[in-house]
Amino acid sequence: MVAAIENRPANLVAVLHGTRDVRLETRGLPALGEHDVLVEVRSVGVCGSDVHYYEHGRIGSFVIEQPLVLGHEVCGVVVDCGAQARKRHAGQRVALEPGVPCGRCSECRHGSYNLCGEIRFYATPPVDGAFARYVATHEDYAFPLPDELSDDAGALLEPLSVGIWACRKGGVGLGSRVLVTGAGPIGNLSMQAARAAGATTVAVADVNLERLERAAQLGATRTIDLNERQLTSQDGPFDVLLECTGDESLTGQAILALRPAGTAVLVGMGPGLEARIPVAALQAREITLLGTFRYANTYPAAIALAASGRVDLDALVDARFPLEEVDRALSANRENPPLMKVMVDVAPRRGPKGAGLGRA
Amino acid sequence: MVAAIENRPANLVAVLHGTRDVRLETRGLPALGEHDVLVEVRSVGVCGSDVHYYEHGRIGSFVIEQPLVLGHEVCGVVVDCGAQARKRHAGQRVALEPGVPCGRCSECRHGSYNLCGEIRFYATPPVDGAFARYVATHEDYAFPLPDELSDDAGALLEPLSVGIWACRKGGVGLGSRVLVTGAGPIGNLSMQAARAAGATTVAVADVNLERLERAAQLGATRTIDLNERQLTSQDGPFDVLLECTGDESLTGQAILALRPAGTAVLVGMGPGLEARIPVAALQAREITLLGTFRYANTYPAAIALAASGRVDLDALVDARFPLEEVDRALSANRENPPLMKVMVDVAPRRGPKGAGLGRA
Amino acid sequence: MVAAIENRPANLVAVLHGTRDVRLETRGLPALGEHDVLVEVRSVGVCGSDVHYYEHGRIGSFVIEQPLVLGHEVCGVVVDCGAQARKRHAGQRVALEPGVPCGRCSECRHGSYNLCGEIRFYATPPVDGAFARYVATHEDYAFPLPDELSDDAGALLEPLSVGIWACRKGGVGLGSRVLVTGAGPIGNLSMQAARAAGATTVAVADVNLERLERAAQLGATRTIDLNERQLTSQDGPFDVLLECTGDESLTGQAILALRPAGTAVLVGMGPGLEARIPVAALQAREITLLGTFRYANTYPAAIALAASGRVDLDALVDARFPLEEVDRALSANRENPPLMKVMVDVAPRRGPKGAGLGRA
Amino acid sequence: MVAAIENRPANLVAVLHGTRDVRLETRGLPALGEHDVLVEVRSVGVCGSDVHYYEHGRIGSFVIEQPLVLGHEVCGVVVDCGAQARKRHAGQRVALEPGVPCGRCSECRHGSYNLCGEIRFYATPPVDGAFARYVATHEDYAFPLPDELSDDAGALLEPLSVGIWACRKGGVGLGSRVLVTGAGPIGNLSMQAARAAGATTVAVADVNLERLERAAQLGATRTIDLNERQLTSQDGPFDVLLECTGDESLTGQAILALRPAGTAVLVGMGPGLEARIPVAALQAREITLLGTFRYANTYPAAIALAASGRVDLDALVDARFPLEEVDRALSANRENPPLMKVMVDVAPRRGPKGAGLGRA
Repeated sequence: MVAAIENRPANLVAVLHGTRDVRLETRGLPALGEHDVLVEVRSVGVCGSDVHYYEHGRIGSFVIEQPLVLGHEVCGVVVDCGAQARKRHAGQRVALEPGVPCGRCSECRHGSYNLCGEIRFYATPPVDGAFARYVATHEDYAFPLPDELSDDAGALLEPLSVGIWACRKGGVGLGSRVLVTGAGPIGNLSMQAARAAGATTVAVADVNLERLERAAQLGATRTIDLNERQLTSQDGPFDVLLECTGDESLTGQAILALRPAGTAVLVGMGPGLEARIPVAALQAREITLLGTFRYANTYPAAIALAASGRVDLDALVDARFPLEEVDRALSANRENPPLMKVMVDVAPRRGPKGAGLGRA
Repeated sequence: MVAAIENRPANLVAVLHGTRDVRLETRGLPALGEHDVLVEVRSVGVCGSDVHYYEHGRIGSFVIEQPLVLGHEVCGVVVDCGAQARKRHAGQRVALEPGVPCGRCSECRHGSYNLCGEIRFYATPPVDGAFARYVATHEDYAFPLPDELSDDAGALLEPLSVGIWACRKGGVGLGSRVLVTGAGPIGNLSMQAARAAGATTVAVADVNLERLERAAQLGATRTIDLNERQLTSQDGPFDVLLECTGDESLTGQAILALRPAGTAVLVGMGPGLEARIPVAALQAREITLLGTFRYANTYPAAIALAASGRVDLDALVDARFPLEEVDRALSANRENPPLMKVMVDVAPRRGPKGAGLGRA
Repeated sequence: MVAAIENRPANLVAVLHGTRDVRLETRGLPALGEHDVLVEVRSVGVCGSDVHYYEHGRIGSFVIEQPLVLGHEVCGVVVDCGAQARKRHAGQRVALEPGVPCGRCSECRHGSYNLCGEIRFYATPPVDGAFARYVATHEDYAFPLPDELSDDAGALLEPLSVGIWACRKGGVGLGSRVLVTGAGPIGNLSMQAARAAGATTVAVADVNLERLERAAQLGATRTIDLNERQLTSQDGPFDVLLECTGDESLTGQAILALRPAGTAVLVGMGPGLEARIPVAALQAREITLLGTFRYANTYPAAIALAASGRVDLDALVDARFPLEEVDRALSANRENPPLMKVMVDVAPRRGPKGAGLGRA
Repeated sequence: MVAAIENRPANLVAVLHGTRDVRLETRGLPALGEHDVLVEVRSVGVCGSDVHYYEHGRIGSFVIEQPLVLGHEVCGVVVDCGAQARKRHAGQRVALEPGVPCGRCSECRHGSYNLCGEIRFYATPPVDGAFARYVATHEDYAFPLPDELSDDAGALLEPLSVGIWACRKGGVGLGSRVLVTGAGPIGNLSMQAARAAGATTVAVADVNLERLERAAQLGATRTIDLNERQLTSQDGPFDVLLECTGDESLTGQAILALRPAGTAVLVGMGPGLEARIPVAALQAREITLLGTFRYANTYPAAIALAASGRVDLDALVDARFPLEEVDRALSANRENPPLMKVMVDVAPRRGPKGAGLGRA
């Protein structure tokens, strides 16, 4: 086993040292715990949080105080297994759920492992992420991928999980009328998840016309151009709001478009610790306002939905850069109009889109 | 208004007087309560319960002691409104939810109006059903139909409601693995509803190959031919069982194919008051066994799902007979193989299938 | 029947004509609908909302534009029944649930009848309340009282219902750790309901020492004096917050004392349409924020809890005034320290407290 | 540390070698895993399952194929800690939750750790139980006890957990009307838990008059003597059934006493794999039938309920035997009338009952 590892190329890693300062470094292979697997990374999605760390060096109370590897939307191939890791084997293509909880605390024992205080989550300080040639993780969080899914799709199961979680928490089901605010990757995938869950009305609101159009192509039943007007209660009533912008004002308008006993799910994070919420309406209509944080137990569903074609993940990919150009990938979003989803290709890609690197 | 009513054709009604004894009679128009609407019937589906009453004169404790009009899957057109019925207007095509609850009892006040002890439900003794030219009902239970739906589809929202209810009670959602036992109309529509709700595995088990094939065409991801073998736990694990046969032995096998903490929904009714249930497994795996009875608050979802094409109702219709031949419609199921869904055409039909009467 | 009614004393009614302008008037007996009962009022509690209307002529968007009778916490005796009101009979002592919903709308059909847009609720414009010798209501909302309950307790089932509803919505159960902000009547009864529901920690926070003491006497396991310090996360973690003040700042502090996946129930109404809510914590900890509005299906539980001694309603009553002195009752709260609960005695009172009128 | 352990008395263990064949043996101290604690046992309750293994050598599919130590209701004192066990310390009195799940499987990750397929549960073959001087367990499952609780009460948190779990699964809450079938230890504690959860009607049915009387003393609002008559629907309607006998016939009768939409919780295990269940009623009334297995996340609530006096555990203890007389403890239940709860005193007991050994 040691021999095999020694023959592998060195572990090239893209490390964020400060604002807009990513440096390529060569590191040793990550140490494997008993139940860990070593994964040769293939595709990593660039998330808004990665861009935010890259641009600002922090997200709220999470501050990058020492060099950090970004990237937490990951697909790769198992190349080695820890001594007790018997569920996976070398050669398996896997999507990595980026957070590994402790399994012991009260939150874990209640099934809310996303709220585990000891969770180790890629690219959240001080845990390094996956803009690297090799990463290690616990085998239970490395999910084998069916052939129907491309490497990119494997990586994008992560943001899809966010959308699935939002729909589950919000109770989206057969015949639900859903409003999604924000048509970026999370909004788009929340919309697709809502459609897959049986929602028959899924309105998507944004200021970005290109993104609204993409939402419509991928299943939104209505789009609302927020350049033209604000949301009003006339746009509703909706059963569920999936709020994916973090915008205080828009959130308030959207809540007012819910029916009595409706549910507002906060997915997008805003800039401040507090936001003005229309509590009088919340009370008079008994609206439920749900904070959501990442997800739990979503990967099996995400894989099955994507593999069966209910959700289209590849359609979100607008550009692709090699690991050596992570800084370009992290900057690509500054383009106007912004790209939807940028991927970092770490190893030869597999999937429906045969195109080379660069803008897809 | 009176004049208009007097000009209408008499109310032709097909009345069950005894086992296999249906007689056409001419009756007056039904009296309209303040909130009622008068509906000119267009299409009525034949349900297994109709056939059972026709063949046996009873279903369990429900005994036909006086002449009864059968039929409770109904689509028609509003032709008159009671004095206070202001939500509907003449000319509206409507699907009728066949049960009108009291709105006052404890069950109604808790939202479980399907369990209302005072509910008046078409074709359940002593309430007459809809094998008739005209029926009356409360306007709140007459749902306007969008143009996308045929008259037959309007009538078949009723069995679709059963499937939606089963899925809701069973918690079918994104990524659910569902087993449907029975591939008749209820099984088929439960399967379609499960698919629409995000289930990614929907296995359907039956002995009828034609019905299994139809299930596969309409979305089942797997079919299990029960002529060849019994269900076993190897077929699972499933998250949810939608049991649509009422067969004691099959129910027991199917429960054993559920995962721990799975849910078994009893939809089909068996012949006896009791059934042998594998309680030891129910306990060791903490399985939830749910009795279901009709449905509540399903019509809006049913309409939206059918109108958006998520569920195909017309594909179930195998034959069509005029009101004058209700007895043939009620006997058609004795054919071998049995027809899936037989409709009674009361007035000129509208919809995607332009064919005339007889076997579709 | 008419004779009997004519022999009764005239219907003395206390009518609010404007800010702090209550006038006694003599009116005819209220008309009885088919399912209504006529109730001779015995005891009516003064609610903060009554006081607010009295002092300001409005509550938020509810504006008194024509003379209004206040009072919605009511106990009395049935003295007459409408033609179809067969569940109740003259002589029955009853507590009145003050809102009668339509029973037909979507909210009613889903069991959320408290959100019915057509609900007729005592003392909410333009529906007159119960500071009167006689009121009428639908028999289904007049609940027979067991002998264990005093007239005052019968009236106070209404605020107890608010507390029960808060606990149900918040999921208070065996072993729950609950924080109640506000120790007034609603806070106190929410605390008592939480205790009865199995909460083993119930902390109550307020600035009013007398009320904190009363909370401790009636079951609070901890009291927090907000004169001394603010709430902090150190006070927790709590599973559930029952917020009974409407104070924006306190609400924010209290939310921060919840555990991950905790629930905040908004019971008290604040002065504004919006409030600043700590959404970042709501998201990072997946806290559920629930608006509540009145209650549904609580009276049977409220009666049983009070009758069994689990909840002490009489202990809240601080003063009592006759109907002729409703203005004094509405002003009593201006005393310092404020009284907990003031009752209006309309007819000879029955119950454990034999004392006469005035401060109890 | 080694020295300290060597000075301790040898580990005396009572081992079941076959039907009614318990032998005292001296074993080494159990090995401690990194997160384990070594516990000096004080009090162990005798459960019906212990007696069943003792009398029959098996329970259903669990067969004793090699010598087994029984006992899983345990209280003791921490005397040593594994290298990473930092939450507990020597000297702490602890109650042991007898099952330690894997924390990794799908059931664990969903919070249903009681359904973990890898759980190690005391006295379930092949895992040894606690009729021993010393046992080891994971520190997360050793709960510190407040002084209010006796050693016996600490041990009896285990059967109380069963009752809490039954109430949680059944949704027992404020104003619930509950039927408990069976007045043995589990029935009694289910009754007490239901009372603590706000149930206002708790009827207990059994044939054992002494146990019915004890139920009444400890909070049952009604007792039903099944020697005199069977249960009928006239005894209800109940919202929730907590079935603690496993008797097929009684279960059927009890289900028929539930209200529409009621819930039946199966707690007691019957002799067979199957039981005849009244499925027609289950369907017509939409009753939920829940299998339950052990419990999850109940110990903190159990401790708080017992410590606050809401539940009386000591009142169940009828007799006490030293570890050397485990066989007498396991045989005591053959007495007529059967004893309620028999304890095995392993080390000097602490608690409210100062009495010596033998029948309490």
